[in-house]
Amino acid sequence: MADKTELQDMLTFARQTITAAGAIALQYFRVPLNVENKAGGGRFDPVTRADREIESYIRERISTTYPEHALVGEEAGMRTGRDNYRWFIDPIDGTKAYISGMPLWGILLGLMEADACRFGLMYQPYLQELYVGSEQGAYLCKGANTHAMTTRATRNLPDAILYCTHPAMFQSEQDLQLFDRVAERCKLMRYGGDCYAYCLLAHGFIDLVIEADLKSHDIVPLIPIIEAAGGKVTDWQGNSAINGGRVIAAANASLHEQALNLLQQPARS
Amino acid sequence: MADKTELQDMLTFARQTITAAGAIALQYFRVPLNVENKAGGGRFDPVTRADREIESYIRERISTTYPEHALVGEEAGMRTGRDNYRWFIDPIDGTKAYISGMPLWGILLGLMEADACRFGLMYQPYLQELYVGSEQGAYLCKGANTHAMTTRATRNLPDAILYCTHPAMFQSEQDLQLFDRVAERCKLMRYGGDCYAYCLLAHGFIDLVIEADLKSHDIVPLIPIIEAAGGKVTDWQGNSAINGGRVIAAANASLHEQALNLLQQPARS
Repeated sequence: MADKTELQDMLTFARQTITAAGAIALQYFRVPLNVENKAGGGRFDPVTRADREIESYIRERISTTYPEHALVGEEAGMRTGRDNYRWFIDPIDGTKAYISGMPLWGILLGLMEADACRFGLMYQPYLQELYVGSEQGAYLCKGANTHAMTTRATRNLPDAILYCTHPAMFQSEQDLQLFDRVAERCKLMRYGGDCYAYCLLAHGFIDLVIEADLKSHDIVPLIPIIEAAGGKVTDWQGNSAINGGRVIAAANASLHEQALNLLQQPARS
Repeated sequence: MADKTELQDMLTFARQTITAAGAIALQYFRVPLNVENKAGGGRFDPVTRADREIESYIRERISTTYPEHALVGEEAGMRTGRDNYRWFIDPIDGTKAYISGMPLWGILLGLMEADACRFGLMYQPYLQELYVGSEQGAYLCKGANTHAMTTRATRNLPDAILYCTHPAMFQSEQDLQLFDRVAERCKLMRYGGDCYAYCLLAHGFIDLVIEADLKSHDIVPLIPIIEAAGGKVTDWQGNSAINGGRVIAAANASLHEQALNLLQQPARS
């Protein structure tokens, strides 16, 4: 296992890397940009030069500094390594928001050591907000200021604010029904947000994020941010969320249990 | 009719007022806040001290400087005037986003002279973005920079990006079906945004906003921003949007016509 100094050095490296990558993202944000569609079959899954250049920049930095580490990235796939470390990169989480000029996308970078998420970062360069989670805690750096983050103590669904990026994430009618069942019991449900919603949960402003169709690189970097702030994140079976798929993040264990119970009851057919 | 200098003075006054009101909004943003529910019947329509203090501040400024003008505000209602001028105030458009810590709400302030929208402003103080539309054009002021805004030339629905704050805006199953009919033909539909989506349309990043259940103060301040940038905004009948209700904003007249045609065909029953 990595010692503390080694991990601290890797986190410092990650902060420098993601901040520099933010400059690439801003360079292409809100300027005319050629948008390609990665998906077939009438679906729209956009990718831009910004996604590719950011991922390529981050991969190169990691390959130079930690050549033995493995890499998992959205656009350029996986590279195996000889060490026990795997970096997860989402160059732009929320490309659909990015191409719409909405400032709620983010760059994600996380590190796993064997099966443990060591630290994770989300950077929103337009807002100059860097969210970090590690064994040292969860915090938001905005400009020169650092705020420690703690999730909310909301105990009951009728007091909870629930977010989800978009209803089309749910791959089946049944999953959408299960989501709606939780949403109906919450005080407020809003769509939108991508990675930003998970950071608002860590920051103590919302209580639940329930989504589906996530990839590892969408969620691994967010897990340490949520957990270090006091939240709980799993898949809809209550198992580790590191493989993505259907994910639930909650401000605390009690709220997590209530929502998970509803997600696990058979849906109306 | 007001002469140019008089209107210019009123616009300068409006800019100063809305910028000062932004400081009140930031003071209560992302801090624990008592949230009241204005709605009954299981609905949730939040109002906070921030909404009330901002509206009260703006009303007082207008009453002192233009005591003869009429006022229409979200929280404190209407005050009639002796002049031909009516100010429209939405202290926080997007209170649900505001209480979630999301930065996409905005303060709205607009001026009508008889039946004409003279100018409108949207201020997002967390992003320090002030959107302005008047007979002098549409522009975004961010810090010391001013950018002129023009809507996009997107000609066909299959190339269009459509936004809508939330599907629950549609008061009937039929209206939701009509919205879905347009959404299905667009390249991309996303939820979320409130007033921010209309400003992104004016800025040339998205192509359509289709919503319902709006009040006058939600839309009047946005009309001059959209129109001065080259966009078109009406109700779903193609009439003036100043009374709110069901509203469609489009980047240009051609896109407006295509979407309006779909909204006017009878919905599947």
